[in-house]
Amino acid sequence: MDLELAKRLSQPADTKIILCVMDGLGGLARAQTLRSELEAASVPNLDRLATRSEVGLTTPVGPGITPGSGPGHLALFGYDPYQFDIGRGVLEATGIDFELGPDDVAARGNFCTLGPNGAITDRRAGRVPTEVSTGLVERLRAIKLDGVETFVEPVRDHRFVLVLRGAGLGDEVSTTDPQREGVAPLPATGTGDQSQRTAELVNDFVRQAHAILADQPAANGLTLRGFAKYPSIPAFPETWGVRAAALAVYPMYRGLAKIAGMTPLACPAGMPEQLRVIRERWDDFDYFFVHYKKTDAAGEDGNFEAKCHALQEFDAFLPELLALNADVLMIAGDHSTPALMAAHSWHPVPFLLYSQFCREGNAANFNEQECLKGSLGVFPAVDVMPLAMAHALRFQKYGA
Amino acid sequence: MDLELAKRLSQPADTKIILCVMDGLGGLARAQTLRSELEAASVPNLDRLATRSEVGLTTPVGPGITPGSGPGHLALFGYDPYQFDIGRGVLEATGIDFELGPDDVAARGNFCTLGPNGAITDRRAGRVPTEVSTGLVERLRAIKLDGVETFVEPVRDHRFVLVLRGAGLGDEVSTTDPQREGVAPLPATGTGDQSQRTAELVNDFVRQAHAILADQPAANGLTLRGFAKYPSIPAFPETWGVRAAALAVYPMYRGLAKIAGMTPLACPAGMPEQLRVIRERWDDFDYFFVHYKKTDAAGEDGNFEAKCHALQEFDAFLPELLALNADVLMIAGDHSTPALMAAHSWHPVPFLLYSQFCREGNAANFNEQECLKGSLGVFPAVDVMPLAMAHALRFQKYGA
Repeated sequence: MDLELAKRLSQPADTKIILCVMDGLGGLARAQTLRSELEAASVPNLDRLATRSEVGLTTPVGPGITPGSGPGHLALFGYDPYQFDIGRGVLEATGIDFELGPDDVAARGNFCTLGPNGAITDRRAGRVPTEVSTGLVERLRAIKLDGVETFVEPVRDHRFVLVLRGAGLGDEVSTTDPQREGVAPLPATGTGDQSQRTAELVNDFVRQAHAILADQPAANGLTLRGFAKYPSIPAFPETWGVRAAALAVYPMYRGLAKIAGMTPLACPAGMPEQLRVIRERWDDFDYFFVHYKKTDAAGEDGNFEAKCHALQEFDAFLPELLALNADVLMIAGDHSTPALMAAHSWHPVPFLLYSQFCREGNAANFNEQECLKGSLGVFPAVDVMPLAMAHALRFQKYGA
Repeated sequence: MDLELAKRLSQPADTKIILCVMDGLGGLARAQTLRSELEAASVPNLDRLATRSEVGLTTPVGPGITPGSGPGHLALFGYDPYQFDIGRGVLEATGIDFELGPDDVAARGNFCTLGPNGAITDRRAGRVPTEVSTGLVERLRAIKLDGVETFVEPVRDHRFVLVLRGAGLGDEVSTTDPQREGVAPLPATGTGDQSQRTAELVNDFVRQAHAILADQPAANGLTLRGFAKYPSIPAFPETWGVRAAALAVYPMYRGLAKIAGMTPLACPAGMPEQLRVIRERWDDFDYFFVHYKKTDAAGEDGNFEAKCHALQEFDAFLPELLALNADVLMIAGDHSTPALMAAHSWHPVPFLLYSQFCREGNAANFNEQECLKGSLGVFPAVDVMPLAMAHALRFQKYGA
């Protein structure tokens, strides 16, 4: 919905909303068993809750569109993902609490392995451990570029962030990642004067970096992508009139929440810790975004059993989540990651909203086929937030 | 979806897509039996495929909107039918391979029967045969208009095409067809200077034509409608990144495909011939649009049994279609033509998409009621193409 209208309709209420995002929740059935991950897993708590909830399937961005994690989450937060497009560099930088200035251009970096002919032999440098990549990042800080300040920051494993700071930089810079092995990293190119100049600086950075990394056994090269400046998006708390907290461990999701204006709470990994922090800070916030990563990681690995296991692990925490007695509890996914495809996909994502004002549908379980029978049907993920506001009695009547 | 975005997301793949359009596919149940044409017909192959496919019902243009064949097809090709409105005159002219210039105005013509008082007694002149109407068209070529070149071309039965060629013509010209019998053809009127002048030329043409046709027993009059210039629409092959072929026999559907930038393949009438040509040209194209007319013709005639028969005839060809092993096979309709109404209607149209990445729903058969239980629900026809692209793995991920 229009965010100005959302702001106008929102009203104060003493109600709590929880959005649990199971990353990559949706799946596909294996041909042998005709069962998806959710159908194969034993998730009795989710199943029971589904019979008492409004359930359906969310279309993250649009029919046939496979979303990245950014658009997938923004939609669940109520932002039209076509209108608000946030670059990966900004997500990564914000996620590690790097304070981006308005003129900065940020990029997501990957260490990679280059063969003797300069072609990439491993796009993730054997997933070089964080301790090692942190040391490499420190060496890259010696690089000087003409007329701009340079920041290199470690993220996790093979991933790092590059930020260029200076006047007149542009972010319409192409990726240097060819997205496959066997070919050399691409030169960056820019669209328009500012981005062309930025691309030249980026290429200079890569040249110097490759010289510095030449003595490394695995991480002797790098790729850069997702060049972006900090976006201006309406703040989530002001738009919906809720004090919003994010319980996310992975940098990118913390970054997303922060860009939306939520407060990321420091939290060790694991649902028990996330639940503990929610309980501790219960009175300080009206809205809690809880991110659960394991479902997506298993799906991306093509590991059907691991994804079932991740679903079961989440299911076991559901009674504790329910015990918080939030006025609105939502179980959602930012996109599907079917283990069968070992990748994000476009398929709609099971969704459940539980409140005392639920209109029940005909779903007997929480899975892809049963959610089709729910009272919400297949609907755009961007509608999730208005529904939550309604069930939390935080929306006034529209019109007289 | 936005066609610029479609172009940006599309990626090459070695996959094939087939779209079969059963014209006027959707129907309505007869009160006596409570069965629609699809429910009354025996279509075991479609039924079986539906249980393994993503099924739903497409809304061709919008709820309550009864589409002509143009918008109905354009939507299935991914064009928003509200944004891309192609006049009937252009469709007919293009369908018979008449090369329209950028300033030409084309109209669809019908021979009709006029009574002694000038009122229409038969809007189709007893469906005068093509051999006769071709002769009449030749006589109409004698007509001279002030300052413009005139082309008259036969189409089929009582239908022909009129093209006016000259500078400064407009296509906002009203129909001369009153759409009912018992009244005289209407004078054409134009909106704006150019279209006013064009309307005057059209009225002059009609006057001269009626004089020429006065000695005819049946086809002693004519009506003109669908005045239009050649539209500029983004080319289908460039937008979606597919080499696209059209297997359509009727001129209008060939015309539609051509306007969209597809390659119409020469093909004798009949599904066996269409299938043969697809097999012959399999390697030359990535996308095949196959048009099946009989369902609509029977529906328009109000012949319930004939429509059932047409559905059964199509069903019998389905195994051969499946044997082509396309990566994505879709069975769709451009609109409903319930035999009960003997006309196009606004009702959503059964739809089926089969690929190896299907998420099955709960539909047990391929008909109006069961398709409601499918994984796609009721959805806009304009979303069909993005879905096909996704299932053909021809779309990149959107956003980071």
